[in-house]
Amino acid sequence: MDFNHRLLDVIDKKNSLLCIGLDTALDKIPASLRQHDNPLFVFNKAIIDATADFAAAYKVNTAFYEACGLSGWKALAETFSYLPSDVIKIADAKRGDIGNTSSMYARAFFKEMRADAITVNPLMGGDSVEPFLQDPEKGVFFLCLTSNPGARDLQYFSNGRQSLFEEIISLVKAWNEKNNCGLVVGATHPQELGHVRDLAAGIPFLIPGIGAQGGDIDAAVARATDANASNALFNSSRAIIYASQGDDFVQAARNAAEDTWKKLNAARATKRLALNHQDMK
Amino acid sequence: MDFNHRLLDVIDKKNSLLCIGLDTALDKIPASLRQHDNPLFVFNKAIIDATADFAAAYKVNTAFYEACGLSGWKALAETFSYLPSDVIKIADAKRGDIGNTSSMYARAFFKEMRADAITVNPLMGGDSVEPFLQDPEKGVFFLCLTSNPGARDLQYFSNGRQSLFEEIISLVKAWNEKNNCGLVVGATHPQELGHVRDLAAGIPFLIPGIGAQGGDIDAAVARATDANASNALFNSSRAIIYASQGDDFVQAARNAAEDTWKKLNAARATKRLALNHQDMK
Repeated sequence: MDFNHRLLDVIDKKNSLLCIGLDTALDKIPASLRQHDNPLFVFNKAIIDATADFAAAYKVNTAFYEACGLSGWKALAETFSYLPSDVIKIADAKRGDIGNTSSMYARAFFKEMRADAITVNPLMGGDSVEPFLQDPEKGVFFLCLTSNPGARDLQYFSNGRQSLFEEIISLVKAWNEKNNCGLVVGATHPQELGHVRDLAAGIPFLIPGIGAQGGDIDAAVARATDANASNALFNSSRAIIYASQGDDFVQAARNAAEDTWKKLNAARATKRLALNHQDMK
Repeated sequence: MDFNHRLLDVIDKKNSLLCIGLDTALDKIPASLRQHDNPLFVFNKAIIDATADFAAAYKVNTAFYEACGLSGWKALAETFSYLPSDVIKIADAKRGDIGNTSSMYARAFFKEMRADAITVNPLMGGDSVEPFLQDPEKGVFFLCLTSNPGARDLQYFSNGRQSLFEEIISLVKAWNEKNNCGLVVGATHPQELGHVRDLAAGIPFLIPGIGAQGGDIDAAVARATDANASNALFNSSRAIIYASQGDDFVQAARNAAEDTWKKLNAARATKRLALNHQDMK
């Protein structure tokens, strides 16, 4: 099954649009865990066990592991190994280089880590992304309109007819021959989310920004999902995994995941009702 | 000393514009080395020992090490530790993410690896690059006009007055408050190299593409260096480190490095002569 079909399937089976971001930092996890040999993985294992009921996907942010050197890279690999097979495993790596080098990154994340998908920066163009797209079962989420303030600096650069992020959408549609391309679009741009959805029919979105970054869940789900209120993953990292930094962190993370999952599904129900209402008119 | 001054100083002291790229892949190193516990590092150590006389900088391409999993990450760290202190140590990582995450990448490469500089993808804008720029002694080379064919896809996207790569130059000049910003400009764009040099006075360039990618050394040096025929590093990876894949690889790499170093210095001499000639007119 190609990646984009599998994503719809997982969202359906798990009845969830929630992606949980494992941005795990040594100075943020409970002090009691820091005595372990491999504290990042011990923390992730506990978080995964507590939240997997509610998650369609996990997004592992490579930076947090690289910052810990060799032990961090070990924890990254162990985390990917531990993730259950019924969720989408995303390496949030934002890689991209000349073809010869990108093929090495594809090997690192798809073969070594056995991630299902990776985030890729498209700035270097076609030949730089091609090695990531070889296997239809492996997905690529391309940076398009990111959730941070700096998105304004280059992503809105415009030729008068369209902005760079719209040009990226055109390219990604062309690159989607194997139905394994997606887009990263921040929930912090509610106005543009609907516009990007209109331009990129059928393409899945990975949407950061609903947790600590403050994006509005209802607006984001209404605008970014497709006509079945699906085909988008909404990521929350810090607001779930650090819901408590005390010894109740497991239960707190579970509660925060459940709460976010419920809010996402409530927003889906609202969208479906509105669509049904339109149909009946 | 800030990074950009140190770079000029190293070029001067080592009388070299040569950057050697350690794109070390297990299937490309001599078969006799593959029996070692840590073959990537054993290879790099031999290459560094053989070529350090001619190099102003080494650029370690993180993808090749990540592709080997944990043992690769170990070899990456050992390579950075082994590099001599009189060369510029560049992590060719092409990272860039929201501020919170970029600060983790900065820690990974500047603190854990003790690299002197990193390559960064500027697509996510100001707040995404800021954590890399905190320490004036640490340099950042921003992707501007890359050496690969796909550079055409987005980097030339134009608003009618200027292209995206020119907009990147404007941003990087503004980000250069601590005199630690540089640009990545491919030698495969000889026409544009001079134009980028005119736009980015004082900013150092990291120039891939003179080796296996086929860029012309004389044209690249003439156009990309400053009025002292300095302030640019020219990278060759495969053409030096894989000059031979047999057991004579050490001598072959040394010869290839010396040859490239000579060609770069000959091109500098030609440029200086031409400039003196102009001055005398």
